Amino acid sequence: MNAGKRRAVVLCSGGIDSTTALAIACSEHFQPYCLSFSYGQRHTIELQAARRIARAFNASEHLCLDIALDRIGASALTTAAPVPRGTPAAEGTGAIPTTYVPARNTIFLAYALALAEARACSEIFIGVTAVDYSGYPDCRPEYIEAFQRMADLATREGVEGRAIRIRTPLIHLSKSEIIQTGIRLGVDYGMTHSCYDPAPDGAACGACESCLLRRKGFAAARVADPTRYADPEHLSPAPR
Amino acid sequence: MNAGKRRAVVLCSGGIDSTTALAIACSEHFQPYCLSFSYGQRHTIELQAARRIARAFNASEHLCLDIALDRIGASALTTAAPVPRGTPAAEGTGAIPTTYVPARNTIFLAYALALAEARACSEIFIGVTAVDYSGYPDCRPEYIEAFQRMADLATREGVEGRAIRIRTPLIHLSKSEIIQTGIRLGVDYGMTHSCYDPAPDGAACGACESCLLRRKGFAAARVADPTRYADPEHLSPAPR
Repeated sequence: MNAGKRRAVVLCSGGIDSTTALAIACSEHFQPYCLSFSYGQRHTIELQAARRIARAFNASEHLCLDIALDRIGASALTTAAPVPRGTPAAEGTGAIPTTYVPARNTIFLAYALALAEARACSEIFIGVTAVDYSGYPDCRPEYIEAFQRMADLATREGVEGRAIRIRTPLIHLSKSEIIQTGIRLGVDYGMTHSCYDPAPDGAACGACESCLLRRKGFAAARVADPTRYADPEHLSPAPR
Repeated sequence: MNAGKRRAVVLCSGGIDSTTALAIACSEHFQPYCLSFSYGQRHTIELQAARRIARAFNASEHLCLDIALDRIGASALTTAAPVPRGTPAAEGTGAIPTTYVPARNTIFLAYALALAEARACSEIFIGVTAVDYSGYPDCRPEYIEAFQRMADLATREGVEGRAIRIRTPLIHLSKSEIIQTGIRLGVDYGMTHSCYDPAPDGAACGACESCLLRRKGFAAARVADPTRYADPEHLSPAPR
């Protein structure tokens, strides 16, 4: 039985990073409570991936919440605006790309905090990375540290001196280091999904910023890319 | 036209505090974007009040989001647990009452931050008070200050040096001072609703912690209480 096991909320998007964070939580013997969000994004296929992954890791619970971000709008991921193709903005000008969803990680972490309180979890794992990321302000270490300080004051646990810890085990890892970490822990990345603009059958486009980061990561990690692409023969070479 | 008016998100629960915060935002010539939440609470009657109030203050928008807190649970306000009657816990032992909803204000403010980004609002008004409150950790000034520091790092605006300000104009006011402020600004408190456990027709119970705080506030402010109570003849005297 798992009665004495420590519990952790793990934010699960169905992608490489959150799946690796989940594998790390399990390797530290946490009993995972997986939390995913549906928010009018086009890629609900990633939620199916999250469900498969939560099951594969024997999660105690997989809560998928519909959180209505599409009614707030202002992102290419939640509105009808086109998803950009090509190199992620963060590597070029430093500008925040149109796929940025306003305050998304703040909303995700706020729900994770509520679930951690309600299920007596001592930690929250989130797979953000400040290395191979997309230029979103809410992926930076200083943001996470500020969220932690706020969380310490927000909750019953914080008031009672048992703060809920926000864990970001990937924050200083590149995509290839994340993949190498997951491979060491036995992650099957064939279960994961990253594409912002998949075909109806779930195949990845290979060209959006999320696919490019993914392809670059597998190439740099020298690991075979298990992703099913819509048009593998006509993919441009993996970016370096 | 209001083209040049500054915009503010105002969190609207339909109660006394948020309605007074809305009146203050309007008195400072902000164009209000009202934001309310439905979260499986028993008192959806308060959302009808919020709608009336947003209309009365000519809000540019009133967004009511369904945010699924009932699927997280762990509060007497979102589950089948009984709503306690009697004196609010904060005035007695300092314990956090069972009506505490895990991380509620953090979730509310996270959505407000997203809406402020999406609608180009420079401020967020929230009617929290650390004086006549219910002992919730996320109503304290130090919590709000920590949320502000986190928000400065979370958003596009923060990165670009135009931080979104969290405004808490009631934080050091007692309930009676809040009511006196609102009366000076012309608020009709007959539009507002506070009860945690109303009758099917919307009449207030007069006995839950929220009703007791409200009744005490009107008594101390020496303002006639416009609330419609389910059983006015048998109400215990307003607490002091």
